[in-house]
Amino acid sequence: MTTLAECSPSRPLRAADVAHWDIETDVVVLGFGIAGACAAIEARAAGAAVEIFEVAAAAGGSAALSGGEFYLGGHGGTPVQQAAGFADRTEDFVKYLTMAGGPGADEERVRVYAEHAIEHYHWLVGQGVPFKGTYLPGKWLEPLGDDTLLWSGNEAAWPFADAAKPAPRGHAAQMRGWGAGRVIMEKLSARALEVGARAHLNSRALALVVDERRRVQGVVVRIDGELRTVRAAKGVIVCTGGFICNRAMLELYTPLAKTCEHPVTAGNDDGSGIRMGISVGGAAIHMDQVFATRPFFPPESLVKGIFVNACAQRFVNEDAYHGRVTQFMLRQPGERVWLLVDNEIFGRPMVFPKIVIAATGETWAEVETELGLPAGELVHTVEAYNRHAAQGEDPLWHKKPAFLKPLATPPFAALSYCPADFPVNMFTLGGLATGTSGEVLTVEGTAIEGLYAAGRAACGLPRWGEGYSSGMSLGDSSFFGRQAGRHAAGH
Amino acid sequence: MTTLAECSPSRPLRAADVAHWDIETDVVVLGFGIAGACAAIEARAAGAAVEIFEVAAAAGGSAALSGGEFYLGGHGGTPVQQAAGFADRTEDFVKYLTMAGGPGADEERVRVYAEHAIEHYHWLVGQGVPFKGTYLPGKWLEPLGDDTLLWSGNEAAWPFADAAKPAPRGHAAQMRGWGAGRVIMEKLSARALEVGARAHLNSRALALVVDERRRVQGVVVRIDGELRTVRAAKGVIVCTGGFICNRAMLELYTPLAKTCEHPVTAGNDDGSGIRMGISVGGAAIHMDQVFATRPFFPPESLVKGIFVNACAQRFVNEDAYHGRVTQFMLRQPGERVWLLVDNEIFGRPMVFPKIVIAATGETWAEVETELGLPAGELVHTVEAYNRHAAQGEDPLWHKKPAFLKPLATPPFAALSYCPADFPVNMFTLGGLATGTSGEVLTVEGTAIEGLYAAGRAACGLPRWGEGYSSGMSLGDSSFFGRQAGRHAAGH
Repeated sequence: MTTLAECSPSRPLRAADVAHWDIETDVVVLGFGIAGACAAIEARAAGAAVEIFEVAAAAGGSAALSGGEFYLGGHGGTPVQQAAGFADRTEDFVKYLTMAGGPGADEERVRVYAEHAIEHYHWLVGQGVPFKGTYLPGKWLEPLGDDTLLWSGNEAAWPFADAAKPAPRGHAAQMRGWGAGRVIMEKLSARALEVGARAHLNSRALALVVDERRRVQGVVVRIDGELRTVRAAKGVIVCTGGFICNRAMLELYTPLAKTCEHPVTAGNDDGSGIRMGISVGGAAIHMDQVFATRPFFPPESLVKGIFVNACAQRFVNEDAYHGRVTQFMLRQPGERVWLLVDNEIFGRPMVFPKIVIAATGETWAEVETELGLPAGELVHTVEAYNRHAAQGEDPLWHKKPAFLKPLATPPFAALSYCPADFPVNMFTLGGLATGTSGEVLTVEGTAIEGLYAAGRAACGLPRWGEGYSSGMSLGDSSFFGRQAGRHAAGH
Repeated sequence: MTTLAECSPSRPLRAADVAHWDIETDVVVLGFGIAGACAAIEARAAGAAVEIFEVAAAAGGSAALSGGEFYLGGHGGTPVQQAAGFADRTEDFVKYLTMAGGPGADEERVRVYAEHAIEHYHWLVGQGVPFKGTYLPGKWLEPLGDDTLLWSGNEAAWPFADAAKPAPRGHAAQMRGWGAGRVIMEKLSARALEVGARAHLNSRALALVVDERRRVQGVVVRIDGELRTVRAAKGVIVCTGGFICNRAMLELYTPLAKTCEHPVTAGNDDGSGIRMGISVGGAAIHMDQVFATRPFFPPESLVKGIFVNACAQRFVNEDAYHGRVTQFMLRQPGERVWLLVDNEIFGRPMVFPKIVIAATGETWAEVETELGLPAGELVHTVEAYNRHAAQGEDPLWHKKPAFLKPLATPPFAALSYCPADFPVNMFTLGGLATGTSGEVLTVEGTAIEGLYAAGRAACGLPRWGEGYSSGMSLGDSSFFGRQAGRHAAGH
């Protein structure tokens, strides 16, 4: 038998070996981040008793540190989109989300999400999440003020814009300055408690408890140093986040993040929930994928620059989302990349003002020499770019006309986005395979009874680094957290 | 309880529910391909009783359809390498294999393999695998004649050659023409039977049997339509191959291969063994990675051409291994790529003589126009390439001098390697995480008692499409199959 002392996230405890349930409830939620809070609220709304176990000393999870955006649209637009004049059609929203999911997109998940995104917006408002309702044009990471609606992905950039009519879909919670995730989590965690979920903080989930038919019956939790068995009559919902803090898992699954020194996390994305799901036969999918970024704008003027690699070749349309641009950076030879700017557009990235200026010159030939690039290549690249940009065209990478201008005003500079000079922020996108009700699936697609997952413990809408857009993770986590809570409660 | 009728690769049977063992043995080997044959031989040598279950009507697996090469070297060279004048140092072999494993390389696995590669060569000879012992210079997919030693990877190409002294390490079994895997499998499967392993053909492994402590105790097999329980006192070794035949698994794990129409397989790479491993808590890793190829040479002259994408940019050193070149093709915009050749080097790829000639011209400007590329870009790319090639240099992609020559003899042509024109052959590289003794590991790195895996059911030395080299899969499968057989028997 697996004894209580032996069990671990990779080793479930047999229900037959539970001598006594210390706590009994309907729905157990592991993790009090955004997925957990939303799961708890909906499970309570469906009449279930809910106990939340959170390893940290406070609710919030990594969502509380985030920019606080939800990726929403379709059905003619949210009230905020409509007020700003964007009649966002569901089919464009679906098309965009599908492209954003990449070649491994989950079309059923996209469809369910898009179908309910407007309802979800109203639900968030109903829980007290504040949206000012104002539109902020331009390219930003997060609103500097307290505006709501912004362009937060690749909507307006090639090839997305050519396939789906673009609309801004990033809905930021109202807060002056960055980090509106804090406001969201204050509201949602308070709401979960208000509706009667019981939360245990400083409580680490150690293992699942399964019966002989591999139905999940509960969990083992360590609270105040004591092991407690918790029975979940209706289901366990794993909302424990991703695994960017777990070096061993990154080593095993995620070459791109193996050496990541700037994880985006509140500190507890240790993959424990993913391991628990795996321990009872759940499939862990797209474990190689990460959101990765060197946020190279704002200032927006830098988008008018051009990225080149060590061959002096352009390799991306610079008006794409910063996370997409970064994925392209990471695959260039030696990861050596520079952003070329002229004096008109020169600036320092807001989040990294100490950027290294790798070369300067009164001519591009000087810059080329200073970077040590093959003779004539950089000069050709800029000359060709400038010639087309003057016509409002970018035949190579299809950057949109708004960001095209000849780089012709000296002095010129090359800003370094090389690994040694500019850190990459990352979090993981891979996780447990789930159905649209949050049920954890085996490789064969069958649901594991009594087990649900949401948030970055699951592989959700965002599952392809090249397609990530700000707001996709909170949107997915909150919506599918709700789905899981409702379905577990109704089980 | 899980009943016998309910069990599946994703759902193990409980040992307590086995009323009766139909067959009892020491070591069960699932799959009679190369990993299975080698595992069986070694388990027998260690004194264990061995039963092999193979789903096909004959032994051989996908190895029997392969080119029949083993990737071997180090310790001053195999006898074949030495005879050809290559004193292959272990440190170069280790360095190369590590680079070939990519950012997720398993250094321990590499070390153990490199340490024993010469011994493994002699062991293969001892089993009757014939090596003629002659060296074939040049760039080939497989020997056309019956030579042994060839350049079968990226050894001589940048950046590999700059980090590890190159040596040819592909050791092909002796057979006139392609497909020497057949000879190898005839020898190894006959040998396994000769030493006393019992083989059951037309026998499908359905599920593992596990006890209460999740130790693997045996398997359920369907033989002649009947379900049989098989007890493995010492261990079960999963050698069932990869999952390129399983559309659902590709959909879940492997976006790159989702639409693969040319799987490299004998037809039974259905991932069943991987699923069995997952069903008892085994970690499945690097499931996104595939070997993919559009073999663009021979003729070797084509390596002197240059690949360009829809931006008219070069994107790879064309003297790299064809599988590596193909991985780079797959990530170009729209996957639109062409090989530019002049009249001196023109030829048709041996494996795809019906290649589409997308454009021709007396000048490169004509070819550029015919391909519809941005004005001046292709002309610049070729002009710069030619200028450097005349000096024996390739400052952009570091193709080696032997393959550098100006493309200056009209008429010129662009051969299409676009998806619609040239199919991609693929097999999967992801599989179960294993230790160097073949033991299947959980995410936390603990061994699952009684369960081993080898061959493409495991994630082995080849785990990165960009680094694959011919012979790495057979080398890994045979060597770690042996490891698993020996360790299971000694359990």
